[in-house]
Amino acid sequence: MRTHTEQRPAKLTRKGEQTRLRIVSAAAKLMFDNGVAGTTMEDVKSAAQASSSQLYHYFADKQALILAVIEYQNETVVGGQEPMLARLDSIEGLRTWCAFLVQHQRDLECRGGCPIGSLGGELAETDAKARVAVSGAFLRWESGIRGGLRAMHERGQLTADPEDLALTILAALQGGLLLTQIHRDVRPLEITLNAMIDHVAAQTR
Amino acid sequence: MRTHTEQRPAKLTRKGEQTRLRIVSAAAKLMFDNGVAGTTMEDVKSAAQASSSQLYHYFADKQALILAVIEYQNETVVGGQEPMLARLDSIEGLRTWCAFLVQHQRDLECRGGCPIGSLGGELAETDAKARVAVSGAFLRWESGIRGGLRAMHERGQLTADPEDLALTILAALQGGLLLTQIHRDVRPLEITLNAMIDHVAAQTR
Repeated sequence: MRTHTEQRPAKLTRKGEQTRLRIVSAAAKLMFDNGVAGTTMEDVKSAAQASSSQLYHYFADKQALILAVIEYQNETVVGGQEPMLARLDSIEGLRTWCAFLVQHQRDLECRGGCPIGSLGGELAETDAKARVAVSGAFLRWESGIRGGLRAMHERGQLTADPEDLALTILAALQGGLLLTQIHRDVRPLEITLNAMIDHVAAQTR
Repeated sequence: MRTHTEQRPAKLTRKGEQTRLRIVSAAAKLMFDNGVAGTTMEDVKSAAQASSSQLYHYFADKQALILAVIEYQNETVVGGQEPMLARLDSIEGLRTWCAFLVQHQRDLECRGGCPIGSLGGELAETDAKARVAVSGAFLRWESGIRGGLRAMHERGQLTADPEDLALTILAALQGGLLLTQIHRDVRPLEITLNAMIDHVAAQTR
């Protein structure tokens, strides 16, 4: 039996990196569409067009793959938003980011919810390592939101506490995404984010 | 093979009702602790101390049981909060409700998240009937929140739109619960709900 390992091999060739990424991104898509429980290693192998020996070379077991998917979604979702988050130091920047989030859900026809929040909700009670990895992704996201708010606060434009406000905005975003996913309607996300913008705007001068 | 049915038998004896409820509440607890995928019919049978013939008499298959669990959590969580929701026509009532929600998470050591939101997040993409049932529970919850806000609005105390505000509060609550579950810390829920109270208070006169 293979022993469990979370660490990727110390050095991967460029081709090795590409194969690993092909597997992780296929797994991420399957888990986003069908949940973690609804995704088997066999499904991933087939979607990534990988052999069993390739799959198990990079990921000793499903748990190792799950952790890699969380890391991948952290990079894709949070990392992908960082250029926009860097401009959250104005109401205008906040509006642009929120409009992007709403449009993205519209493009997805409100399917899937937050790729990170969904993994967290499904795994939190049964996989402590996954919960901690999702917690890390949320903290990075919160930190990205906080940066711009803190800049507004330091310039004296924002009177509210940027720490609390960043956490509130991320929570509102997560809840809005969940309600939008469940109702298959973009309105919950849109209304909630607009309320957040108003809430910030009411505390600026 | 049994055919799938969602409907409970037309008439249950009192004893039958009790057995059915014992099965559903055991399933609800297991699904809250371990997720839907982590709960087998065998687990439910054992936790409810029911025989196979009892279990399959009331629930033709796991999907029928899942729908009964969503209905049960709708009654327990939303129905259980309705007396408090009926007093959301004041900032004081809002504070009492929010304090209850935070204390409840503290009692649970931040485990499990929202019993309804968690089911929704896990099932939304793979079980359309479950998604619709969760949607119904969220609409009932939103309606409960809206009632008090609408009363404040009609009395001229609340200047904001009670429809949008109720949806925003439920989204903030759901997101706060998710972050609290993932970080195992009551702070996200507490901060988010306090921000919501401030947001409502700022729009009252």
